[in-house]
Amino acid sequence: MTPIAPGATIGILGGGQLGRMLSQAAANLGYRCHIYCPEAEPPAGQVAAGVTTAAYEDAAALDAFAAAVDVVTYEFENVPARAVERLAGHRPVHPNAGALAVAQDRLVEKRFARDIGAGTAPFAPIDSPADLAEAIAGIGLPAVLKTRRFGYDGKGQVLLRQAEAGEAAWRQLGASPAILEGFVDFAMEISVIAARGSDGAIAAYPPIENRHVDHILDRSLVPAPIPPALADQATEVAGRMLEALDYVGVLAVELFVVGDAVWVNEIAPRVHNSGHWSIEGAETSQFEQHIRAICGLPLGSTALRGQAEMHNLIGDAASRWPELLREPGAHLHLYGKSEIRPGRKMGHVTYVRPPADGDG
Amino acid sequence: MTPIAPGATIGILGGGQLGRMLSQAAANLGYRCHIYCPEAEPPAGQVAAGVTTAAYEDAAALDAFAAAVDVVTYEFENVPARAVERLAGHRPVHPNAGALAVAQDRLVEKRFARDIGAGTAPFAPIDSPADLAEAIAGIGLPAVLKTRRFGYDGKGQVLLRQAEAGEAAWRQLGASPAILEGFVDFAMEISVIAARGSDGAIAAYPPIENRHVDHILDRSLVPAPIPPALADQATEVAGRMLEALDYVGVLAVELFVVGDAVWVNEIAPRVHNSGHWSIEGAETSQFEQHIRAICGLPLGSTALRGQAEMHNLIGDAASRWPELLREPGAHLHLYGKSEIRPGRKMGHVTYVRPPADGDG
Repeated sequence: MTPIAPGATIGILGGGQLGRMLSQAAANLGYRCHIYCPEAEPPAGQVAAGVTTAAYEDAAALDAFAAAVDVVTYEFENVPARAVERLAGHRPVHPNAGALAVAQDRLVEKRFARDIGAGTAPFAPIDSPADLAEAIAGIGLPAVLKTRRFGYDGKGQVLLRQAEAGEAAWRQLGASPAILEGFVDFAMEISVIAARGSDGAIAAYPPIENRHVDHILDRSLVPAPIPPALADQATEVAGRMLEALDYVGVLAVELFVVGDAVWVNEIAPRVHNSGHWSIEGAETSQFEQHIRAICGLPLGSTALRGQAEMHNLIGDAASRWPELLREPGAHLHLYGKSEIRPGRKMGHVTYVRPPADGDG
Repeated sequence: MTPIAPGATIGILGGGQLGRMLSQAAANLGYRCHIYCPEAEPPAGQVAAGVTTAAYEDAAALDAFAAAVDVVTYEFENVPARAVERLAGHRPVHPNAGALAVAQDRLVEKRFARDIGAGTAPFAPIDSPADLAEAIAGIGLPAVLKTRRFGYDGKGQVLLRQAEAGEAAWRQLGASPAILEGFVDFAMEISVIAARGSDGAIAAYPPIENRHVDHILDRSLVPAPIPPALADQATEVAGRMLEALDYVGVLAVELFVVGDAVWVNEIAPRVHNSGHWSIEGAETSQFEQHIRAICGLPLGSTALRGQAEMHNLIGDAASRWPELLREPGAHLHLYGKSEIRPGRKMGHVTYVRPPADGDG
């Protein structure tokens, strides 16, 4: 692939904080960014050269967007597949539509993980109350019933403890195609952020420990305190996925540590909240890495600058900014969202402890 | 001063790479930026929430700009004083007009340096050929004749080796108010980047060694390899200047190392090319530091992350980007300028060697 040279314009579907940090990283390398999203005044638009405000179903707006950019990427996996297909008729789109399709459907995702030889929780497709009863009998309880599509941050899922509550749970989720997953009594949640370049090169950051509160990521710590064999196993899973998907860009793989194995929970075909620490904590941030990959540039070093820790600022926590600015070593990031809402990701703060501190 | 809270809009006069990197740093903290400059398609506009394209003499445009922003700063010292005065009638402007006036006139600047007790080359004001003859007799040759105003990157100055060439040199510079400075046989050129907050707190980075080629900064290295006593002397000069000017923001002081003393060469009331390494090389970049100061936030840590080196990419050197992207540890910055011109600053690259490497 001929590189897309600095000066070119990168089109980004979605205008949230991920698009914002992608735009900032792209600007460091001399690229312009053009944001496409239906919402007015997207946070990413504040740092981008261009913004299109239009629906993902607006064919004319999509075509005009494609004409205005040199390459297309996206910041969230629920972008409609038809929009991506339309854009791909005009311009390269990374990651590709196949990767997006896998990430958009929890059943396809789990089957994909199994197919590349990765462990997962036991799972079964659910299209009816009868399916559910059968799956509960096979998998056991507790188990988690999840919609196949459009779930995030714990939305679209219900924990089942009793078989008789199953049908109500399925109706609560809209009686739509679902998946039942065995409840995983994990020791730790981790993620691997890995990238594949257009030349096939793969580079991964060390696995990250993730701690959630109310199903939303609260803290990420890197490197995750796990044995090297487990870290290798997790990194290999991410690498096999990148190759199987013929992927270009950054991929996030969330996994559970279960005994001496890692099980795939889900994947995100994009930069990921659990990789934000890389802005200060790694030689190359996940955002620059993604830009490098989709523009056909060589991948950058994923070496750590130290032990890093990222705390999300959710809702009111963002009002802690005055104290965070006084704290030495706290690297504050606010996303330019005008309205604070409960559960809304408003910013994050990163701490990096240099390896020279004695325990590197 | 009540802090200007994240979410507010920062107005920046000037749309070049300094405004661009200021905008990026401001966005990290959740601010919007609005660029004001006469040139179309400014590099800073690619990463800013708003752009006004208008002359610095356009009163209506200045008033509308003031109404759209919460605080005003600038990225270059040759912004017309009247524009700053007009804006200051509506909104806080940092650094203040007094600091700008000192930096805009080499004679006022040198007298200011002398008044706060700093060393300088011998100098004399030149308003006529007679002044020049007298000054040459007093200061000796070689000496440098400089216009008092609008000089940068070696422009507006002539090296004088023979007294009889003086009048021609003065006419070559437009027969405008000038200054004659004794030629300084320096051991090293250094700079101090220091900031003063609205609370009066001062924070300086360690002195930086600067190497010029054709009067344009080529490389900066930090910490400058000078004895601690000299570093202290240089840092104290910057601190006295910040206090004397009642300054808020980042100030750059360029100095010559002459024997066991430092002499002030010039000051820039803004972020400075010799501080670009701080993006990766310091806990807080000079750009974030300036934003913190002008918004009334506490200053950040100026601690180094290692030994840092910044190489400017001037003109054609920017076409080295493919090789720089392959180089581990090279942090590439390109400024989004569409046209490469000789002598034009197109980007820079920063290397940081961790202190753990053995010689920190």
